[in-house]
Amino acid sequence: MSEQVKLTLEQCHALAKDSLMKRGANEANAVAVADTITAAERDGCASHGLFRLPGYLSSLISGKVSGNAKPSLERLSPGVLRVNADNGFAPLALSHAYDALAEAAKENGIAACAITRMYHFAALWPEATEMANRGCVSMAWTAATPMVAPAGGIKPFYGTNPMAFGWPRKDREPMVFDQASAAMARGEIMIAARDGHSVPSTAGVDKDGNPTTDPNEILAGAQSAFGGYKGAALSLMIELLVGPLIGDFCSFEAGAADNKDGGPPPGAELIIAMDPRRFGDAYGFEDHAEKLFAELLKQPGTRLPGDRRYLNRQRVAKEGFSIPQSLYDAILEKTG
Amino acid sequence: MSEQVKLTLEQCHALAKDSLMKRGANEANAVAVADTITAAERDGCASHGLFRLPGYLSSLISGKVSGNAKPSLERLSPGVLRVNADNGFAPLALSHAYDALAEAAKENGIAACAITRMYHFAALWPEATEMANRGCVSMAWTAATPMVAPAGGIKPFYGTNPMAFGWPRKDREPMVFDQASAAMARGEIMIAARDGHSVPSTAGVDKDGNPTTDPNEILAGAQSAFGGYKGAALSLMIELLVGPLIGDFCSFEAGAADNKDGGPPPGAELIIAMDPRRFGDAYGFEDHAEKLFAELLKQPGTRLPGDRRYLNRQRVAKEGFSIPQSLYDAILEKTG
Repeated sequence: MSEQVKLTLEQCHALAKDSLMKRGANEANAVAVADTITAAERDGCASHGLFRLPGYLSSLISGKVSGNAKPSLERLSPGVLRVNADNGFAPLALSHAYDALAEAAKENGIAACAITRMYHFAALWPEATEMANRGCVSMAWTAATPMVAPAGGIKPFYGTNPMAFGWPRKDREPMVFDQASAAMARGEIMIAARDGHSVPSTAGVDKDGNPTTDPNEILAGAQSAFGGYKGAALSLMIELLVGPLIGDFCSFEAGAADNKDGGPPPGAELIIAMDPRRFGDAYGFEDHAEKLFAELLKQPGTRLPGDRRYLNRQRVAKEGFSIPQSLYDAILEKTG
Repeated sequence: MSEQVKLTLEQCHALAKDSLMKRGANEANAVAVADTITAAERDGCASHGLFRLPGYLSSLISGKVSGNAKPSLERLSPGVLRVNADNGFAPLALSHAYDALAEAAKENGIAACAITRMYHFAALWPEATEMANRGCVSMAWTAATPMVAPAGGIKPFYGTNPMAFGWPRKDREPMVFDQASAAMARGEIMIAARDGHSVPSTAGVDKDGNPTTDPNEILAGAQSAFGGYKGAALSLMIELLVGPLIGDFCSFEAGAADNKDGGPPPGAELIIAMDPRRFGDAYGFEDHAEKLFAELLKQPGTRLPGDRRYLNRQRVAKEGFSIPQSLYDAILEKTG
């Protein structure tokens, strides 16, 4: 194992916030990104933690992303909101969406929020978690730049196009999953390449369309959608939801527009929130879901999606976490 | 190939309608089911066509399903509708949902409709198609009875839990996909078993949890979700959406409640509809989507989801279709 730097979550947050501010982000933007990075490290998601910070910094350095973005919220219809992220990183824009979206869901039963003109580089489970913490069932989707081959094709076309889903639970953490439409998250393939590990042969193809376990070959070729054409269909759905539906970039357009500075690509996100008290079983839905979960967990070997993250959270709270020295050095170097 | 009976779509519709009415369904219910069965055969989806008719008839014979159901529509909140299917087959209840849901989506931008106390045995693409024909982007989900093993488990727990998605297109058929969260549709495995064909080893496991290509072993064991734990996470989401959220059965509850007469299980469905004119790009969304589709189709070997159905439709319109003599005989026998 390469040399590691051990950090507390407080150190993580300070490192992220300070370096972003040194590169010109204002406090609101820097704190929002630092919160998101720290939440990822807190839950053991290294691929969306400090691993992303050099990219965020690159986009401030290149001038692609505004570190002083002032997101603005508008209501397009009774059930549809839009946050214009003002060409900033996603986290601050998202923080403008949650309360308003939860309020609209409570009023109408269901509501949606588009976050546009943003640069998203993080996991999606924070969105679903925030909405669950406000009592809402939610789904969130975003696209990226071309990385995943479509069904029948071998060249990158879709982003890894993740979706998150969150279900609020009484007196405990929500059930939240967040999964790429790609068989593997891009960040995980990048980390495998960095660390010299192989990946499953379902993860992608080389530039000639042949399956490979070499992450570098996949990065030069194309990732595969999970489950073949079905994951690819979900990818296409997500392109439509965050592109044409809300008037922002599809992945192929984001890829053409991006300056490839290593930071997050331009794009948008859609979140749908539902107030389960307005769907016909206001008094029973929570216990009913617990009955479902309990029945599921009777089978040996099963767990609920997201449970590993909560276990990681306990571990990290006790032990802290570490990042490779090389990453730490890269952050310091990018910070200047 | 076994002996076949050649039919026109008109003959298909009459066969379905007449046999359902002979078994006690009133005209409204019989026609709605016959429409759905005929649409499946029209689009080359044998597994949801007349193949399902003996099951529908069994449920009239056993008295499980009401052939005289009178679905009723109510509005639970500005954006949430519910159709109580009155213990009838899904198609008539669904026909009560479409206009009202489209209207609610136009008013609010986004709306949802729960269809509860119903017996669903059909594909989901008709729902997404109907909503697209009313100008709406939509998603639909339903559960079933335990057939699919959860992530980490080997026993049936989830239904095949399909989802459909529809995108309206200008002056042409909508882009609609409909896919089970199971790696293979139950109907396809049943047809493979009937015809003595093998299935891909990803389709399921035998009763000891070992992968198998024998459809009969899978029917005695468990189907697998598509793409492993990710498809299983979608299955769980769908259980929550059509069970606890709207106050109806999860698959494990439907399995316990069902009389196993070979007909559709009791359960519910959720449809979310969005009016793309209310999401921020009212004038551009259609052309933008066409640009996405065109870019996708530049890659050799690709096609849009649903295109095969539209090709089938042209073929069936010209040539009609056929069903096995054994199925035809089973229908006549069930009709009495």
